[in-house]
Parts: sequence; structure tokens; C-alpha cells
Amino acid sequence: MIKFEVLHVCKQSGARLGKLTTPSGVFETPIFMPVGTQATVKTLSVEEIKEVSEGLILANTYHLWVQPGTDVIDLHGGVKPMMNWDGALLTDSGGFQVFSLAKLRDIKEEGVYFKHHKSGAPLFLSPEIAMDIQTSLGADIIMSFDECPPAKASYEYQKNSLDRTIRWAKRGKDHLKSDQALFGIVQGGLYEDLRKHSVEELVKIGFDGYSIGGLSVGEPKREMYRITEFLNPILPFDKPRYLMGVGAPEDLVENVINGVDMFDCVLPTRNARHGTVFTTEGKVNIKNLQYEMDLNPIDPGLPSPISKYTKSYLRHLYKANEILAMRILTYQNLLYLKHLMSEIRQAIKEDRLLDFKNEFYQKTNYKID
Amino acid sequence: MIKFEVLHVCKQSGARLGKLTTPSGVFETPIFMPVGTQATVKTLSVEEIKEVSEGLILANTYHLWVQPGTDVIDLHGGVKPMMNWDGALLTDSGGFQVFSLAKLRDIKEEGVYFKHHKSGAPLFLSPEIAMDIQTSLGADIIMSFDECPPAKASYEYQKNSLDRTIRWAKRGKDHLKSDQALFGIVQGGLYEDLRKHSVEELVKIGFDGYSIGGLSVGEPKREMYRITEFLNPILPFDKPRYLMGVGAPEDLVENVINGVDMFDCVLPTRNARHGTVFTTEGKVNIKNLQYEMDLNPIDPGLPSPISKYTKSYLRHLYKANEILAMRILTYQNLLYLKHLMSEIRQAIKEDRLLDFKNEFYQKTNYKID
Repeated sequence: MIKFEVLHVCKQSGARLGKLTTPSGVFETPIFMPVGTQATVKTLSVEEIKEVSEGLILANTYHLWVQPGTDVIDLHGGVKPMMNWDGALLTDSGGFQVFSLAKLRDIKEEGVYFKHHKSGAPLFLSPEIAMDIQTSLGADIIMSFDECPPAKASYEYQKNSLDRTIRWAKRGKDHLKSDQALFGIVQGGLYEDLRKHSVEELVKIGFDGYSIGGLSVGEPKREMYRITEFLNPILPFDKPRYLMGVGAPEDLVENVINGVDMFDCVLPTRNARHGTVFTTEGKVNIKNLQYEMDLNPIDPGLPSPISKYTKSYLRHLYKANEILAMRILTYQNLLYLKHLMSEIRQAIKEDRLLDFKNEFYQKTNYKID
Repeated sequence: MIKFEVLHVCKQSGARLGKLTTPSGVFETPIFMPVGTQATVKTLSVEEIKEVSEGLILANTYHLWVQPGTDVIDLHGGVKPMMNWDGALLTDSGGFQVFSLAKLRDIKEEGVYFKHHKSGAPLFLSPEIAMDIQTSLGADIIMSFDECPPAKASYEYQKNSLDRTIRWAKRGKDHLKSDQALFGIVQGGLYEDLRKHSVEELVKIGFDGYSIGGLSVGEPKREMYRITEFLNPILPFDKPRYLMGVGAPEDLVENVINGVDMFDCVLPTRNARHGTVFTTEGKVNIKNLQYEMDLNPIDPGLPSPISKYTKSYLRHLYKANEILAMRILTYQNLLYLKHLMSEIRQAIKEDRLLDFKNEFYQKTNYKID
């Protein structure tokens, strides 16, 4: 089980500073959680994950269920002992991957029949199975099984899907036997009335926290912000709100102002592997010729163990396809998001998050596309 | 400059225990040097390289000359400051890569005209240019520019090539202005008279050490051992002997007995990326199904920071294409070779290297194919 407490509300922005107590650690919110899809944050060791996270990371149910499978994970006693992670863990329900990765879905009331995204093997996930798998994975915080419709789904589709997702949320909660904290997932696309309906029904069932799903799935950023702003006064004040799959620096700033407490995203790790780096000055593309002879560290504003490497050397490593480049850039991207979230929390404490936001856009090249 | 001293000769095997003093560290020999082709040992950080090496590594002239180029390396003050390596460094001359990687070679007395192995750009290397590049790279120990003919080259070809390589060695030495230690490279293929001729002529020129090139290029292992055994009494006793490109565990044991002091090879790092692991019990293929439910560390006989990971987890990471798998397996492979070389040195000190060799083959699955 978890405990959550709002410690302070920023007088300038309305953003929340919270305290999330889990069996595996106590965390200040708002918090960003690095993604360890396959029981490892890509390219990093557990020691490095410690350094660039707050101690709370995410793993993906769909991937780990398919490989190595729950028998291997059960043998280790869960994902955390398997990967030697002594921090806290959150798992998603597999719902998002079923709808984003898997092929030939057949959505029934009982669950979803689909084919594995690589092997094509037939698979079935239901609210109950998603709970059982997540109990094997052993995370501190787990998610309800939901459908995540595409951004462009019609009102009719969203409404039917949402009603089923609510029934699934109830079934999952009824099935869960462990004392893992369970979050319900708010869906409803870009339709405010559906989002409101989703929150109301989930709150009736009652969850330890509320995730916001169905955003960052192709809609314009302003639309995402509109929905989180709409949800801010509707979601229960005293429970954590987790915006799923969002992690661009500007999205963190904007959505914290809209009352979000928790974030995860593959962006920092994926960007790193493509040479795109988050720094205190903004986005940097290490491949650019301008860094060929640049002896500065990748982020002079954020001293760290990787500051000893020059941009010139990192550019060389990246162009030479050296894995060390991806390691260093992944480290930087996650460290920057950790740093940004700590700055955001400080600004909330000081009731100046709107000032911070203005400085953030002035001092960096981050922007809302 | 370097200093080399034979401290002890194993009474049982004739193997040499030596002390190699470089401007960047003092090393006991025989020693294995991990390969950092592009100014990084693949997948590892410099901190990790320290842990799995003796503090002496190799970088490749051809690769670094082509990318990032000597202008970038000069800007950093050499490869060592560029990669933040505070140990010692050895570079090859580029000769091997010109003959193994590059296309459309035209070998003239003045040097080799060839095309870049990827871009096809026209390039030229000569004994003098190879010295200049290696002076930019700034290694403690550098190599003469040589031709490395294929294992199956005819006697006639080997002889002509060898005579030119000797003339190139002289030109390189005459051209070198720095105080870097320069090794001559013994060639001559599998022909003992040519090998003898090569040693005699190189010794007349006079070098700080003698490399044995042209082995591990496709010939049977027994042929390689025959040549090193032949060279053992011929090479100057008081200079280090470096067998280039050799690093299989059994080859280290056999060639130390044949008087070799230094080794390098990409095998441990390349094998790691293909899931093949060197352990104190022998070779392990982490992909094998037998490790799916194996909770033991990868090498129970060699405790290290990676012993916390189970074989089952490593197999999962490898099958999931996670870079962490390659990191951990690279670490293990290099750590094992470091361990093996320290065992070999201890056995030399105790005049029991032949006993050690017998135990090595009995206790492991390493063998001479």
C-alpha cells in the first residue's frame, strides 16, 4: 500500500507538492519516473539508475509477460530482485502496448485477444490476468487494465471503450488479492464530458491513485494541456495523479501546473539513443558539426560524473556507433529531468512556479510545438 | 620511453615474468591489453576499463585517423585525455587494418594507397605518416607500419613483403621525433626462415620491443604456437614481445609458455556482444535455454560487482537486446582474462606454469581446436 499527502499548493500556480510513501521508499512529488521496459532502464546499470532517478522507476507488464515470462520472474521473487533494484517500482497494465504494439486485436467484454507484436503468437489479456501478472512482477504501484483508443477515435468509439474500461477497472480491483497500490486509469480522449464521466465512475470504485491515459498519443500539446487543466479540479485532491507517457521538459512544467504529480516517458532514453540531449540550456543534437571541436561538457549548467567528457568526444563516440555514447547521453537526459523536477518542486515550495516557467522558456530552447 | 626487465623465468615452462615501466604506469607481464579501437573499450566506461584491465589498453590508429581525425585528437591533447584515460596506452600502426579492412590496395615502396572501408575515400599511409598519426594519438607505446599478408600467402609473396616491411620499419624509426616507445613488427608468415630473417633485421635497426604480427589471421592454432615457439629463443631476451591480436584463453596460456609478454585481442569484447562468455569454468553461451531458470552468477568462481546478476536475468537481457547485457558480458570477459593473466603470472613465480596449464584444461572446457 501507499500513502499520499499534498504538502503544499503553489500560491502562484496551483501546482501541488506531495509526499508519496511506498513500501520501497518515500518520494516528493511531482516526480519523473524513468522507464525500465524490460527490467532495465536502457543502457544503464542499477547503480546509474539510482543516480539519475529519485528511486522510483517503471517497468512494462506486456514486455515482461511475453519475455522472460512470469515463471522466470517468479523464480527471482519479482522484477526488483531480478534486476537488483532496491528502489520502488510501478508497472503499467499492458493495456497501452496491446493497443499500440500488438496486432489483430479482438476486443471482447472479457478481455482482448491479440497477436504478439513480433512472433504473431496468439495472446489474451483481461483485467484479471493483468492483475495476476502485475502481482508476479511485484511492483509497489500497479495499473488497471484499460483500452487506450487513438487520439482520433470518434466520440461514439471513445464512449463505448470508456464504459468497458470502467467495467474492467472494477473487475481488476475486485480480483486483486495483493496489497499492491492500484491506480485507475482515466480515459475519454479529448472529450471533456467523457473524461468527467471516467473520473466519477473510477472514484466510485475507489483507487489508490488516478492515472491519466489516452494523452500523448498524437494530439497537439495544447490539447493535452487542455485535458489536464480540465481534470485538475475534478480528480480527488488527496490522491496522486499520474500522467502516463509524458516526459518532454515543457510538458513536465505545463502539466505540473495543471496538477499532475507523477510522470513517466521513454523520451529521455529513446532520444539519447538518437543523439538528442536535454540540457539546462535546452535540446542539443550531438551529431551537429558545430560540436566537432567543442571541448565543453554536454551540460555546463549541470555538473555530474559525465561532465569530464567533451562534446567533441561524445560526438565522435556517437558517430562511431559506440554504446558508450548512448550510455552517457541517457545518463544526461535522465539526470536533467531529475534536476528539472527538483527545480519545479523548489519553485512550488517558494510559490513561484509561474515565474520559474517564464525563466524556463527564456533560458532554454524548449518550446510548445 | 619504456623500461623492460625480465624478473623471473619459470623453471618448469621457461615462461617469462617481466616488469614493463611506462610513463603512465608500471605493469607486470605477461599482460593482456583490452582493445579500445575508437578511443573507448566497447560498451565500458573508463571507470569500468580500470576495473577489468591492468591499466594498459590499446587503440587503433586507422580508425582514429579516419574518425574523429587527428585535428580533433590534437585539440584534446591526445587519445588519453580525450577519453579520460589516466592509464597507459598502446597504438597499432594502421597496417593491419589497411590489409584487413580497406579496399583496393595499391602497395608501393613509398606506402599504401587504398580506399576507406566504408566511404571509399582515397587514403594513403606510409611509415612516416603512421608515425606522425601515432604521435598525435600520444600512446606510450607505438608500432612500426607493416604489411600483414594473409595466412595463405606464398613464400615468394611473404619474402618480398617482409623485406619491404623491414625497410618501412627503418624509415619509421628514422622519422619518429617523439620519445614514444617504438616496437618493430616481426612478419614472415608461417615460414621459420623468414621469421628468423625478420627478427635479425629488426634487431639490427633496434626497437624498444618486438611485436609478432601475421598470426591469428586464419592459420590453425598449432601453427601459431609453432611460430611463437620458434621465435622464443631468437627474439632479444631483454625486450618485451607482443603477440598481436591474440586473446583466446588457451592461446594466452600456450603463448606465454612460448615466451610472449603482451597480448591484445577484440575477442573478449566481440564475444560478449554475441553472448559468448569466458568464465573460470570455460566458455558459456548465455543464449542457451539451460540458463533460463539459472539463478547462479555468470562466474561463481570469480566474484565481482556483476556477480549480483543471475544467469537467468542476463539471458533475458541478452535475448531482449538490452545493451546492459553487452556491458555485463564485456565486463566479465575482460575481468576473466585479467584474472587468468594474474593466475599465469603467479604460476610463473612459483615455477609451475606447466602444472597450471594442465589444471586449466582439466577444470575448464577451453581447448585447442
